Amino acid sequence: VSTDGKPRLGRRVLERLMRYYRFLSETTARKPLESVTSAHIAAALDIDATQVRKDFGAIGVLGMGRVGFDVCEVCRGIRVALGFDQPYQAVVVGTGHLGSALLAYPGFATYGLEIVAAFDKAKGKIGTTVGRCPVKSMRSLKPFIRKHGIRLAIITTPASAAQTVADRVVSAGVSAIWNFSPTQLVVPRHVYVRNEHISLGLSVLAYHLKR
Amino acid sequence: VSTDGKPRLGRRVLERLMRYYRFLSETTARKPLESVTSAHIAAALDIDATQVRKDFGAIGVLGMGRVGFDVCEVCRGIRVALGFDQPYQAVVVGTGHLGSALLAYPGFATYGLEIVAAFDKAKGKIGTTVGRCPVKSMRSLKPFIRKHGIRLAIITTPASAAQTVADRVVSAGVSAIWNFSPTQLVVPRHVYVRNEHISLGLSVLAYHLKR
Repeated sequence: VSTDGKPRLGRRVLERLMRYYRFLSETTARKPLESVTSAHIAAALDIDATQVRKDFGAIGVLGMGRVGFDVCEVCRGIRVALGFDQPYQAVVVGTGHLGSALLAYPGFATYGLEIVAAFDKAKGKIGTTVGRCPVKSMRSLKPFIRKHGIRLAIITTPASAAQTVADRVVSAGVSAIWNFSPTQLVVPRHVYVRNEHISLGLSVLAYHLKR
Repeated sequence: VSTDGKPRLGRRVLERLMRYYRFLSETTARKPLESVTSAHIAAALDIDATQVRKDFGAIGVLGMGRVGFDVCEVCRGIRVALGFDQPYQAVVVGTGHLGSALLAYPGFATYGLEIVAAFDKAKGKIGTTVGRCPVKSMRSLKPFIRKHGIRLAIITTPASAAQTVADRVVSAGVSAIWNFSPTQLVVPRHVYVRNEHISLGLSVLAYHLKR
């Protein structure tokens, strides 16, 4: 239980809530929908219906019996529980293909994330714009984070540069790192790291394909 | 237990094996290392040491008492268990930023994956080359998969196009899809889908940042 008296939600619950949210957003974008049953969500996402109801219960969203759940209420509940209603700013370090993909993606605002600047060591890129974001020099990384109170750094550099970048953004005061470089970062306990190691998926895929 | 008499490995075990493999590859690239203890791996990857030994045991890699594990034997065991020693070919559909990032990444060969062609519907891209791969028209997608016996399709199209692409690659005969588009695909039971929904990470990050 956290300091505000509400139960802390684990990573798997948070990820499932995100999947419900995205599914409901997609579905309602196609056609208006007032209510939805846990069975419907469960079937679409290959999750157990009891689990869906349990997750909704954990964020205080209660069903209406056989009618199921009010879609607006579920979406609002998830937004508040996950913090999408409290926008936060981030910087991207590394503007290769992957960094550019993140900078160009228009969907992050839905989740409260605003990317305000990008950083790269390549002189030719500094001063340019990628996906509406200015690309700045690595020297200005720490001052920028401090000045704007940036809380999240998104690292998309090669593995060899990632730890140095992590050290710098941590010392500048970020609370979290979204790490896309295929390496394990060492950071102080108070900094949260989310690893997005894309090649992890190949373990499962290669294993499946060899059968 | 699978048809070849060996126990099937679950997704989480496979992902941990991948992390051990990457960690040992990185570590030995920096300096030669003959043996390693489960405690050392456990500390570096924030995994329980008992779990590490259990995972190694599951793929038939046994320790040497206090000395720990032979690094070469561990790496070879993981490569064979995950199927990295049995190369397979894949195509990428969608050559936006993310598709280009995957096409340009040199590290996939280590895991047995060879990307042999890319497909896009943008006329201006067809006939060009992205990361040494020829970009072909969507019309040639099905014939190409059939002709070359491609088993994996990597989808990086926008969400709106992903299901149509999935239907086409499935009917052409792929066994697995690596899905980077932020949508839930519907496929027959025999096709394995690995979802790489990057925005899932934002659930945990936003939740952490709001505290």
